[in-house]
Amino acid sequence: MATRKRDRPIITLTTDFGTSDHFAGVLKGVILGICPDAAVVDISHEVRPFEISQGAFLIAQAYPYFPPKTVHVAIVDPGVGSARRPILVEAAGQYFIGPDNGVLAMVYTGIDHRVREITNSKYFLHPVSRTFHGRDIFSPAAAWLASGVRPASIGKRIDDHLKIEFYKPQRTAKRIWTGTVLHVDRFGNLITNFHVEDFPDVRTRPFEMAIGPRKVHRLAINYTDSEPGEVFLIGGSSGYYELSTNQTSAAKLLGCGPGAPVDLTLY
Amino acid sequence: MATRKRDRPIITLTTDFGTSDHFAGVLKGVILGICPDAAVVDISHEVRPFEISQGAFLIAQAYPYFPPKTVHVAIVDPGVGSARRPILVEAAGQYFIGPDNGVLAMVYTGIDHRVREITNSKYFLHPVSRTFHGRDIFSPAAAWLASGVRPASIGKRIDDHLKIEFYKPQRTAKRIWTGTVLHVDRFGNLITNFHVEDFPDVRTRPFEMAIGPRKVHRLAINYTDSEPGEVFLIGGSSGYYELSTNQTSAAKLLGCGPGAPVDLTLY
Amino acid sequence: MATRKRDRPIITLTTDFGTSDHFAGVLKGVILGICPDAAVVDISHEVRPFEISQGAFLIAQAYPYFPPKTVHVAIVDPGVGSARRPILVEAAGQYFIGPDNGVLAMVYTGIDHRVREITNSKYFLHPVSRTFHGRDIFSPAAAWLASGVRPASIGKRIDDHLKIEFYKPQRTAKRIWTGTVLHVDRFGNLITNFHVEDFPDVRTRPFEMAIGPRKVHRLAINYTDSEPGEVFLIGGSSGYYELSTNQTSAAKLLGCGPGAPVDLTLY
Repeated sequence: MATRKRDRPIITLTTDFGTSDHFAGVLKGVILGICPDAAVVDISHEVRPFEISQGAFLIAQAYPYFPPKTVHVAIVDPGVGSARRPILVEAAGQYFIGPDNGVLAMVYTGIDHRVREITNSKYFLHPVSRTFHGRDIFSPAAAWLASGVRPASIGKRIDDHLKIEFYKPQRTAKRIWTGTVLHVDRFGNLITNFHVEDFPDVRTRPFEMAIGPRKVHRLAINYTDSEPGEVFLIGGSSGYYELSTNQTSAAKLLGCGPGAPVDLTLY
Repeated sequence: MATRKRDRPIITLTTDFGTSDHFAGVLKGVILGICPDAAVVDISHEVRPFEISQGAFLIAQAYPYFPPKTVHVAIVDPGVGSARRPILVEAAGQYFIGPDNGVLAMVYTGIDHRVREITNSKYFLHPVSRTFHGRDIFSPAAAWLASGVRPASIGKRIDDHLKIEFYKPQRTAKRIWTGTVLHVDRFGNLITNFHVEDFPDVRTRPFEMAIGPRKVHRLAINYTDSEPGEVFLIGGSSGYYELSTNQTSAAKLLGCGPGAPVDLTLY
Repeated sequence: MATRKRDRPIITLTTDFGTSDHFAGVLKGVILGICPDAAVVDISHEVRPFEISQGAFLIAQAYPYFPPKTVHVAIVDPGVGSARRPILVEAAGQYFIGPDNGVLAMVYTGIDHRVREITNSKYFLHPVSRTFHGRDIFSPAAAWLASGVRPASIGKRIDDHLKIEFYKPQRTAKRIWTGTVLHVDRFGNLITNFHVEDFPDVRTRPFEMAIGPRKVHRLAINYTDSEPGEVFLIGGSSGYYELSTNQTSAAKLLGCGPGAPVDLTLY
């Protein structure tokens, strides 16, 4: 088996498995059995069950902070055991493993990437169940890859993987863009899909961000730069503009969640 | 101190400590102080407080996926500080440490095993508290064992550890077996105690699985192989038959949880 | 860069980030990119958002069980991006990194310690955001320190860090001390701020511990040493006296939480 020279391998896990079952622990047992020196890092196991878009957001947010050659496993997989394919994506100098259902699409959309279907059953755990491919396919493939197995040994390249055109605000009038809330974080910040780099004018021109009945006109420079109860816009650590309040939940205050429409007007 | 040759040691943790206190972190501090190169793996800290049977189920489900010589620590311990004994179990080529209250019984019941009472206070953290043996006895014993200390140094063999005859469906009529729900997972799947290997006829003969007022007659091959709202039986990744629905919680739909009776009729 | 000789470095994390976002995973990516052989240990990410005192309690409880030179990162940081300073504390042979807002004060109050302001941006992740210093300042500084960078390279010593006189019961009458509940753990035990070593007479003399309308007169030696429904006092693993019941939540039974006043009378 051909191998690459390597540092201590890192494998990350992003799933909807929760932490009250044995599922996440089992993935780690399988991984350490194959690749004993791996550092296994939980991104999150608290993706809401079957919420592919939430898993997609989390892994897309997390991967840029990991070293080259990290292997990221993302499993939100309502179609487990059906015809949907397991895939390996090479992008941004890192590896991504998961079902071909969009959970990896926020990573590869818009950047150079190569996709392989994971087919080499030599790297599976046998017998392969119909209900737990995280254990039987995704985590062993990740561990073998982290151990130095070449991507080409895992499976052949494909080009018909799921493409999703998503998460971009649409221009709906001369000065108006309509976007959406991508994610609500633990603190109740509403992360919009307006990327800071795509909308730099928000920093220099008057604007209005409308969500529900609320209209926001101010960009804060940090959370404490605000009046009590004020909802403000902030250039978040995510790279997107976020609707926030100071020390309370903007999501609760506004009664909004993922998918809520957001209108930006630039004057 | 006699030592075994060894790979990178693995220690797993299954507890009811939750993750909002310092308890699980403290276990890891103690372990890494004794055995710095250990990989410490959380199976779960979300066992419901004092629910020994849930802890027993989780560790029994997880351990087969770990390499030989893994040391598994299972702590659901309402009797901490009382007369119940700390034990070390050798079974299936692995080690298991926990209180002798049944939390390890699903692992050792029905297979070859050796049990020792953990008595050598040389391997304890002093002073030993009355309320946190996870910190003072179980995790240091696990770390010393993972570091190469021989089981015989930990304590003497015993034979009067808790034996539980459990989790087996009973034949209640010529064609009828009565079992129970062992566990409800995060997705709402009801894991019964009907093992796939003990009831192979379910795959080939007409059957009825009755739970509450619902009667289930179909074995699905994966979760997506179903009608909307249908409750079906599936041979789960646990090795047991599970009552499931597609992308919703069968437990919520049926209003049933762990301990609910389940009747299987084979025609 | 000057380095210390070292064992496998340990970095712990205590935050209010939760585990349903990518935040905790990102910290680990940053750390492993700088210090690949670090063991990263979660103390807890479930500190209630912005509850500095809870984070302070958890790290103060956890650190004594970690080996010398462990680097502890504690991030509960409502003032992120404002003028509050990032600090590095050397105390008890270990390192502590976090904002200068009191989250580390329970560690350093009353013991020898040295404090530095973290200013050397060579050890930051760039660009430094206004909202996620855990990623951009605290975790990279921790990883460089764990990699052998000297504390003096991180920043200059300061002496005007936040001092808090807290958590000590006050004598309010000849035989009466008034304290408070520091923390409620997962099992519903109410951890008071009466330290076992400061109030040894509780063990040998008649006493009354009053919380709400309830008056407790008995010190139990372990949780099972009690009547059903009885609330008792116990010398907890925390080092403090705790109000507990057997297998149910004392906090729910008493309707009390962190901050509730507690009166101790020694007869």
